[in-house]
Amino acid sequence: MKKDLVSMSDLTKEEIIEIVNLGIDMKNNRDKYCSSFKNKILAMIFAKSSTRTRLSFETAMLTSGGNAIFLNTNDIQLGRGEGISDTAKVLSRYIDAIMIRTYKHKDVQELALHSDVPVINALTDDEHPCQILADLMTIYEHKKSFDLKIAYFGDGNNVAASLAIAADILGIECAIASPNNYMVDEFIRNKTKSVIYTDDVEKAAKNASVVYTDTWISMGEEDQYEKKLKYFADYQVNKKLTSLCKDDYIFLHCLPAYRGKEVTEDIIDGQHSVIFDEAENRMHAQKALLYKLLLI
Amino acid sequence: MKKDLVSMSDLTKEEIIEIVNLGIDMKNNRDKYCSSFKNKILAMIFAKSSTRTRLSFETAMLTSGGNAIFLNTNDIQLGRGEGISDTAKVLSRYIDAIMIRTYKHKDVQELALHSDVPVINALTDDEHPCQILADLMTIYEHKKSFDLKIAYFGDGNNVAASLAIAADILGIECAIASPNNYMVDEFIRNKTKSVIYTDDVEKAAKNASVVYTDTWISMGEEDQYEKKLKYFADYQVNKKLTSLCKDDYIFLHCLPAYRGKEVTEDIIDGQHSVIFDEAENRMHAQKALLYKLLLI
Amino acid sequence: MKKDLVSMSDLTKEEIIEIVNLGIDMKNNRDKYCSSFKNKILAMIFAKSSTRTRLSFETAMLTSGGNAIFLNTNDIQLGRGEGISDTAKVLSRYIDAIMIRTYKHKDVQELALHSDVPVINALTDDEHPCQILADLMTIYEHKKSFDLKIAYFGDGNNVAASLAIAADILGIECAIASPNNYMVDEFIRNKTKSVIYTDDVEKAAKNASVVYTDTWISMGEEDQYEKKLKYFADYQVNKKLTSLCKDDYIFLHCLPAYRGKEVTEDIIDGQHSVIFDEAENRMHAQKALLYKLLLI
Repeated sequence: MKKDLVSMSDLTKEEIIEIVNLGIDMKNNRDKYCSSFKNKILAMIFAKSSTRTRLSFETAMLTSGGNAIFLNTNDIQLGRGEGISDTAKVLSRYIDAIMIRTYKHKDVQELALHSDVPVINALTDDEHPCQILADLMTIYEHKKSFDLKIAYFGDGNNVAASLAIAADILGIECAIASPNNYMVDEFIRNKTKSVIYTDDVEKAAKNASVVYTDTWISMGEEDQYEKKLKYFADYQVNKKLTSLCKDDYIFLHCLPAYRGKEVTEDIIDGQHSVIFDEAENRMHAQKALLYKLLLI
Repeated sequence: MKKDLVSMSDLTKEEIIEIVNLGIDMKNNRDKYCSSFKNKILAMIFAKSSTRTRLSFETAMLTSGGNAIFLNTNDIQLGRGEGISDTAKVLSRYIDAIMIRTYKHKDVQELALHSDVPVINALTDDEHPCQILADLMTIYEHKKSFDLKIAYFGDGNNVAASLAIAADILGIECAIASPNNYMVDEFIRNKTKSVIYTDDVEKAAKNASVVYTDTWISMGEEDQYEKKLKYFADYQVNKKLTSLCKDDYIFLHCLPAYRGKEVTEDIIDGQHSVIFDEAENRMHAQKALLYKLLLI
Repeated sequence: MKKDLVSMSDLTKEEIIEIVNLGIDMKNNRDKYCSSFKNKILAMIFAKSSTRTRLSFETAMLTSGGNAIFLNTNDIQLGRGEGISDTAKVLSRYIDAIMIRTYKHKDVQELALHSDVPVINALTDDEHPCQILADLMTIYEHKKSFDLKIAYFGDGNNVAASLAIAADILGIECAIASPNNYMVDEFIRNKTKSVIYTDDVEKAAKNASVVYTDTWISMGEEDQYEKKLKYFADYQVNKKLTSLCKDDYIFLHCLPAYRGKEVTEDIIDGQHSVIFDEAENRMHAQKALLYKLLLI
C-alpha cells in the first residue's frame, strides 16, 4: 500500500528515526545513493514559491539519479475547473510521487486520497512535516541524541504544529512559547499532551539544548506586521533568552530570517547557529523520506 | 530530411500504425527504451499551460534517458520582437526537437519551415494530432483492431478535426455529431470524405465501439458558456445515447471533463470509461512519435 | 579557492585562451564530455528572461551529464525580504554553481562574495562576459587567430564593455564606434587603454576582420526608441560600412536583431554573417567556462 506524508502524525517513531538515520547516511555517503532514484520522477506542485523547498526537493531527486518537474497550481488548475480527483489520477499515471506546497491542508489530504502515488506535504497552512524531519536530522547530527529539550519561541504556526507532533511521537521534551492568542491550534495541542505550551519565555528556555524560532510574519501577512510586533516582542531569541539555555545549545531557524525581529544578529550569525546545516538537511531528510516512500 | 508533425495529415497510414504499435511496445517494455533518448533534448514551448501536455511530453523524454526544457512563449518572445525564423534557427542549434502548444496553426507551420529539427504540434486552434495518436493507441490497446466505428459528440474543434483526418487516413468508420454551427471546419470536412458529419446524435451513436467527447468550452471561451450550452444539450454522452452503441463500447475524453455537461458521471466514471489509460497513453504515443522523429 | 566570472576582467589572458580552445574541443568532440558534469547542478537565476541564455546554459549542463534548475528572482526573492548573503549561503548548500542574469552588477558581486560556489554573470546592466567568450570562440573558429581587428558599432552597452575588456586583456586590436553620448562607461574606457573609442564609423570599420553590432534598444528601453534612432542612424552596419572592412570579414550579432535598424538584411542574412554559429557557441563556451570553474 502506498504511503503519504500529509501530517507529521502519518509517521511512527520508528519511521522518523529511520528517516533521520538514513538522511545522515545519505549526507555522508552521497555516491552510495547517486542512482537510487533512477527513472523516478517527482512532481513538485507549488501554490506559493520557495527557494528552499524547490531546491531541496529538486536536488534530492537529481543527485540520486531521478528527476523532478516543477508545476505551479495555476498550471495544473488544482481544485478549479478540473477536480482534484481527476488531477490526482492523471498525475499518478505519469509520475512516481507528488510534492505539494499549498494553503489548504484538506487539498493535500484529498490529493493523497485520490492519487495512486505517494503525496508529500511540503507546507500547508496547518503543517510543515518536511521541515521538521530536517530539523530532527540536524539536532541528531549535532547532539547525537534526542534525550534533550527543544524550545520553540514565537508564532504557533504550521512549523510549531509539526514540531509539537514530532516531539510527542518521539518522546522529546518540548516547550512552545507563544503569545496567548498565537498558540498552536487547540486540536493539535490536545493531540500532543507531552508538549508544554506556555506564554512564559523563561520557563520554555530553561535548560533547552535546541532553541528554535521562525519568522513572525509569514508570506501574505505583511499587513499584520505592526500588530504582531507588539505581541511578539518578548519572544525574540537573544542573549538574555539563550543565557537560560544549556551552554552548548544549538540555534535553529527555518528561514527566511529577519534579524532584529524574531532573533538578534549575534545569535543567528553566532557560533551556536546551525541554520545552514538545517537548510542543507532539507535535501538529505527529504531524500531519505522519498527513499522510504518510493523504494521500501 | 527532417520530419515534423504539424497536422495529422503529415503522417501516412503506415506511420500512424507504426507509432501506435511502438507506443504499445514502449508501454509494455519500459526498460527496453530507458536510454533511447540519451543526450536528446526537447524544447517544450507553451502559449497556454496544460498539465497533460507538459507532463506527458516531459515524462516521455525523462523516462527514456532524455531531457525536456519548458519555455513559455513570453520567455522566447515568439513572433514578437524576434521573428520566428531567427528563433527557429537558434533553437535548432541547442536542442533536438521542438514541441509547441500555441494558438495560431500558421505559427507552428512557420516554426517547422525555418527550424532544422523536428517540430511537433502539441495543440493549436486548428489541430491536436498528439491527442489523436494517444486515442488511437488506446483504441487499439482495448479493441485490438481499427475495424470498428468511432463516434464523436460535441464541438467540431481541433480534436475533432485531427480525429477526422486520422480516421480518413486509416480508413476507420467515423461519425462526428455536432450542432450545425459548430461543425468541423469546412476545409477539413472536404479533405475527409469518408467521415460522416451530422447533427443527428442517434445516427452517429449507432453501433459505435468508441464514444468520444470533449469539453464544450475550451480555455478562454468561458463567456460563451450559456450560449453554447443551449446548442450542445442534445449532444451529451449519457445512458440514452450509449444504449445505441455496441455493448462493449469504450468511452474516451481528452480531459479536463465537466461531469453533467458533455458527459454524465455514470458514463465517465463507469466501466466503459478508459479516460485514464487515454491520458497515460499521451506519454507513450508521444514517446513513440519522438522516437520516429529523432531516431529513425 | 573558488573562482567566479562576474566581470570579464576576472579572467586572465591565459584563462580566456584556454576557455576558447576547450569550447572548440567540446564542440568538435561532444561525446568526450558527455559525462563531465555528472551529479553537478547549476542554478540559473533570471531577473529577465532570455531564450539564448537559458537554453545555452541549460543545454551546456544537460549535454554533459549535469542538470540545471531555472529560478526567477521573484521565486527566490533575491535582495528583498531575505538578504543576498543568506540566499547565497543556502544556494551553496544545494547546488554546484550559480548563473545569474539580473540588472544591478553589484548584486552579482555580492552574490559571489557570499556564496561558496562559483557565480557566473550571465548579463547585468554593466557587463556580458559570457557573450564575449562565445564571440571570441566564434572569431577563433572562423579566423584561427586573434591577430586581427574587431570593430563594434552602436550602443556602448554591457556587451561593448565586456568586449573592450576582453580585447584589452588579449591584446586584440579593437575599435568601438558609438555616438558621443552613448559611449562605453568612462570607468571601463579608462581601464582599457588599448581600445579605440570613437564616434567615427569609417575609422572604426577600416581593415576590420570582425564587424559586431547589437540592438540599439535593449529590453525595457522601448520608449527611448525615437530618440535613440536619431543618434544611431549613422552607426548602421550596411554595405557602405562593410566595404571599408577586410574582404573576408565576419559579422557578429548577439541577437535579437532588428533588420533595417542596427544592421541591414543583406549583411545579417548574407555570406559574411556567422550569427547562428555565434548563438550556438554560447553553449560551448559556457560549457568550457563551467568546466574550468567546476572541475579544474
